[in-house]
Amino acid sequence: MHTIRFEPSGQQVQASTGTLLSEAADQAGLELNMPCGGQGRCGRCVVIAQNGAGIRRRSTVRLSAEDMAAGYALGCQTVVEGDAVITIPPQEKIERRLTTDKTAHGVVLPFTYNPQVHQPVRLFPVTIEPPSMADQTDDWSRLKRALSMPDLAADLPTMRRLGPALRANDWTATAVIETDTWAQPDGPPRLVALLPPDAPEAVGAAVDIGTTTVSLYLVNLHTGEVLAKAAEYNGQIKRGEDVISRIIFAGKNNGLADLQKLVVETINALLQRATRRAGIEPEQIFKMTVSGNSTMLHLFLTIPPASIRLEPFVTAINQPLPVRAADLGVNIHPQASVDCLPGVASYVGADISAGVIGSQMCTSTALTLFLDVGTNGETVLGDCDWLISCACSAGPAFEGAGVQDGMRATIGAIEEVWINHQDYEPTCRVIPHPKLEVQGVPTPPRGLCGSGLISLLAEMFITGVVDKGGNLNFNLNTPRIREGEHGPEYVVAWAHETAHERDIVITKVDIDNLMRAKGAIYAGFTVMAQSVGIELDMVERVLIGGSFGQYINVEKAVQIGLLPDMAWDRFEFLGNTSLQGALLALLNRDYRRQVAEAAARMTYLELSADNTFYEAFMSALFLPHTDLDQFPSVAKLLQK
Amino acid sequence: MHTIRFEPSGQQVQASTGTLLSEAADQAGLELNMPCGGQGRCGRCVVIAQNGAGIRRRSTVRLSAEDMAAGYALGCQTVVEGDAVITIPPQEKIERRLTTDKTAHGVVLPFTYNPQVHQPVRLFPVTIEPPSMADQTDDWSRLKRALSMPDLAADLPTMRRLGPALRANDWTATAVIETDTWAQPDGPPRLVALLPPDAPEAVGAAVDIGTTTVSLYLVNLHTGEVLAKAAEYNGQIKRGEDVISRIIFAGKNNGLADLQKLVVETINALLQRATRRAGIEPEQIFKMTVSGNSTMLHLFLTIPPASIRLEPFVTAINQPLPVRAADLGVNIHPQASVDCLPGVASYVGADISAGVIGSQMCTSTALTLFLDVGTNGETVLGDCDWLISCACSAGPAFEGAGVQDGMRATIGAIEEVWINHQDYEPTCRVIPHPKLEVQGVPTPPRGLCGSGLISLLAEMFITGVVDKGGNLNFNLNTPRIREGEHGPEYVVAWAHETAHERDIVITKVDIDNLMRAKGAIYAGFTVMAQSVGIELDMVERVLIGGSFGQYINVEKAVQIGLLPDMAWDRFEFLGNTSLQGALLALLNRDYRRQVAEAAARMTYLELSADNTFYEAFMSALFLPHTDLDQFPSVAKLLQK
Repeated sequence: MHTIRFEPSGQQVQASTGTLLSEAADQAGLELNMPCGGQGRCGRCVVIAQNGAGIRRRSTVRLSAEDMAAGYALGCQTVVEGDAVITIPPQEKIERRLTTDKTAHGVVLPFTYNPQVHQPVRLFPVTIEPPSMADQTDDWSRLKRALSMPDLAADLPTMRRLGPALRANDWTATAVIETDTWAQPDGPPRLVALLPPDAPEAVGAAVDIGTTTVSLYLVNLHTGEVLAKAAEYNGQIKRGEDVISRIIFAGKNNGLADLQKLVVETINALLQRATRRAGIEPEQIFKMTVSGNSTMLHLFLTIPPASIRLEPFVTAINQPLPVRAADLGVNIHPQASVDCLPGVASYVGADISAGVIGSQMCTSTALTLFLDVGTNGETVLGDCDWLISCACSAGPAFEGAGVQDGMRATIGAIEEVWINHQDYEPTCRVIPHPKLEVQGVPTPPRGLCGSGLISLLAEMFITGVVDKGGNLNFNLNTPRIREGEHGPEYVVAWAHETAHERDIVITKVDIDNLMRAKGAIYAGFTVMAQSVGIELDMVERVLIGGSFGQYINVEKAVQIGLLPDMAWDRFEFLGNTSLQGALLALLNRDYRRQVAEAAARMTYLELSADNTFYEAFMSALFLPHTDLDQFPSVAKLLQK
Repeated sequence: MHTIRFEPSGQQVQASTGTLLSEAADQAGLELNMPCGGQGRCGRCVVIAQNGAGIRRRSTVRLSAEDMAAGYALGCQTVVEGDAVITIPPQEKIERRLTTDKTAHGVVLPFTYNPQVHQPVRLFPVTIEPPSMADQTDDWSRLKRALSMPDLAADLPTMRRLGPALRANDWTATAVIETDTWAQPDGPPRLVALLPPDAPEAVGAAVDIGTTTVSLYLVNLHTGEVLAKAAEYNGQIKRGEDVISRIIFAGKNNGLADLQKLVVETINALLQRATRRAGIEPEQIFKMTVSGNSTMLHLFLTIPPASIRLEPFVTAINQPLPVRAADLGVNIHPQASVDCLPGVASYVGADISAGVIGSQMCTSTALTLFLDVGTNGETVLGDCDWLISCACSAGPAFEGAGVQDGMRATIGAIEEVWINHQDYEPTCRVIPHPKLEVQGVPTPPRGLCGSGLISLLAEMFITGVVDKGGNLNFNLNTPRIREGEHGPEYVVAWAHETAHERDIVITKVDIDNLMRAKGAIYAGFTVMAQSVGIELDMVERVLIGGSFGQYINVEKAVQIGLLPDMAWDRFEFLGNTSLQGALLALLNRDYRRQVAEAAARMTYLELSADNTFYEAFMSALFLPHTDLDQFPSVAKLLQK
């Protein structure tokens, strides 16, 4: 018998060799969370063994080498072999660890920021010799002379403010100068504004215009420090959920101008919120980089997007030239450059190029697969020598649309599900209401968001609730599988548990939609790999971008055949890579050039050009796939 | 006795040797106009002797060598020496000849225009391969590829119109491209507009914004041909006659914006008139160059001009950067460049720089004096190696302001006066009303314009009506010299002869104002010449610019001491040099560069910096000058 002490409570029990830690905890009156029924799949029963002593792990699913070195073990998959001190982490800490460890990075720049080297927009304190009868040189020449910038340029509004600005503070000032732009690396420097001598530091804004969500960073352009973040639904949503409906709306009378106004209003609201939070004025923002898919950037610039939607699906412009904030109505300094990142094609936009630089796959020798799991399932394959991209119409199922109880990833959305393999009862994790979370009260669910749907479908498949064709198994002894109004369905939450007092279900129709979505994405990268003669298992890194991507549980995504079956450590979640890329381009002229180069050299593979994609898609319309050999880990799990 | 036949009437008379042609004409019953009383000063009695035979000229004042070679002779100064055939030209032809021979040039470019070499704004027909599923390149890259212009730039509005414009005509179009600007000679080409394949040729506009008059040329940018001209009073006049009152008005609430609007309205009205006359659309105008004094250009660009008026008298910007028509409200193609020519100082503006290139004094080895006789009396002295400029506050007397019966050079203005030296009766030439002119009816006078005032003052001086101090000689036997309400005065026209039925007079106060104005201008160039160690008679050419300049009678201007006393053939009238310079800069990138270089290297001499100017001014406050040695021809005339 061995002595097992549980921390932080300090309770002790005696246990024989081979006893599961979950059993020992039960014996001590402590309860470990095991929503998967103790199969070692959900990882929610994780504990820490002091010095890793006295235990043996039977399964290490969900644990990395570092995790194990730190003593992490799954309660349901670890047996006693000697005396041990076991710490049970607080429940919310487990949640956070599981959901964030491998998800969004914090804002860590992949380079040491030096504004002199990296930043084209900088402040130059300047003292000007006042004019006199002996030297009647004009204000503008005087300023250029003091700055030693003979070819300095300026917009008309800046020329208009010149005289008063120089005289306001006794011929001392702070010049805000953009020394170059990607479009004209050797172009003349431009005077963006002339500020008082004690002007606060310049601020930049990086913006990602998502079809659903617009996100923004404010950054101090001198220190590179992120001052504030903000995100908000894209105000265009009320004119259509997806890019296609927006393009159609843009074709209507005044539709384009209306959509532009809506997204600018959203950005301005974010700017207002973020500047207030950061304690700065919007006029202090002297540069903005903007990322987003091609349609979003066309709409933002009021460039008609019609051709994006019609064969042969081309954009008006993949690489818009920098414009002024005043020309768009964006509420920052009116003479600030607004620089949209370059896209590759109609459905591989700047958000993807941004991801390519954010991940640095374009400078890496490692063969990398980058994908953005969303409506368009944009995927990039390549390395420092070559890049190929494609987009498949996955449809909006992963965004919660086209699914009966689907919803966006907001408060009340079920974002992860575990199904007990014995009684088929689900356990759900719901995106909490902040107030309820503080009070320790669970938030009642309202529906299923994308990550919840992936999680749910994987659990249903692994526990046998559905077969590989996605058909519900009515032979199981559970009231949750039933014939509903719209055909067979599985009840995820009963009405009395929900916010709106209606059963939350997933129907066979929903399952088919999800399978088509995941099938399209998987087919996309298999076809792309084939087109360049690569086997998928040659891929060294799989990078998952997009703001939705960060919430996906890889294991479950592999189980449904959305992601390729690879060692867990080859996957990396990059979070909102579009926003990150915009931030990198904002801060570093080298990254800005890099994104232009990467976008220009990236081959775009049009999947609808022949039948290859269709065939791959048909093969992928199973759980996880017709060819189970492509999913060895899932095959192994199913055998168990 | 000799036979004298007069043409075109065919009358013949017999005359003895030594008979004046004017006497012979009188004998034939023909009347020669002799407003100066037969002193050979006015040149109005000019006749043509066939083959120059049978005559001897006693005086050749007002006749050039070419005139004499062509047989021209003054009736009152030419005697019969043999048989002669004398043609008496129609009166209006004499007038035209006398007033225009040495005045405004027609539009003759000083170079052979070749748009490929000279013109940065050109049309490029372009056929673009339509996009296909095999080539989904975006519209913009496709256009750049077809034009072989990888670094083509465009403004946002052009990017917005790109897709529809390319599709409107089956992927053929005419690209309007500005290949460079003076501000960025190596900058990227810019797409100004994308037109249908059958687009008419590009048109440019050259504009001179005068304080009083705005003038405009429309030019075909392909052929260099002037399509139309138009001129109109500057709409800002109602806010003040001169630059100082406009600057004061600009400092008032909304004053600057109001003045900008007024001048743009004037320009737009001229554009409307000129485009209608030329049969083109304003949208066909893809480039505009603008000249004018520094205040006019500041107001046109809505740049506060306050510092121009306040010591130390500096402009906000001497060399404004090119802007877009849309930013100013000028009704040409909204994306057209509007390029203001460079000035040198607050009171030596782009109008003067334009004159310097128009006259090519900046590339000539001949020492040249260029002057613009106007309120500011801007003067430039130099050659291809050096240039110095100054401005003296002559005041508005030559523009008819500050003079009791002064007026602008418009219908009814007396523009030339001759005084009979026997009875002191004046003969006036009046700017005619076109309708009355057609009917052969004289237009009654309303007042005196600048050239009329110069002419009048010279005649009064030469005939002894005033002495060298400008005092009226009450000893003369004429009712025209009298004591008026405002002191001594000379009556130029009696009330019954005038349009408004009031005597038109010149008073002693007016004479003093005129003497101050001419004294300031003459003092200006003597001080400037001194400052560089030049004697005035070393000047090889005297160029007189400014739209007012062209109406000045050099001889009379010398007689009052406004212009230096030099051989008549050293003077050249250039007309509206500001507008001509704008035209040259519009058509030829080399001239555009030249004007920038000339303005940059021109030294500005501030006359108010020390006492030198004041002393020279005091010496010049006589007719023609304290030092009569400086005016030998006038001295000679006075002896006579």
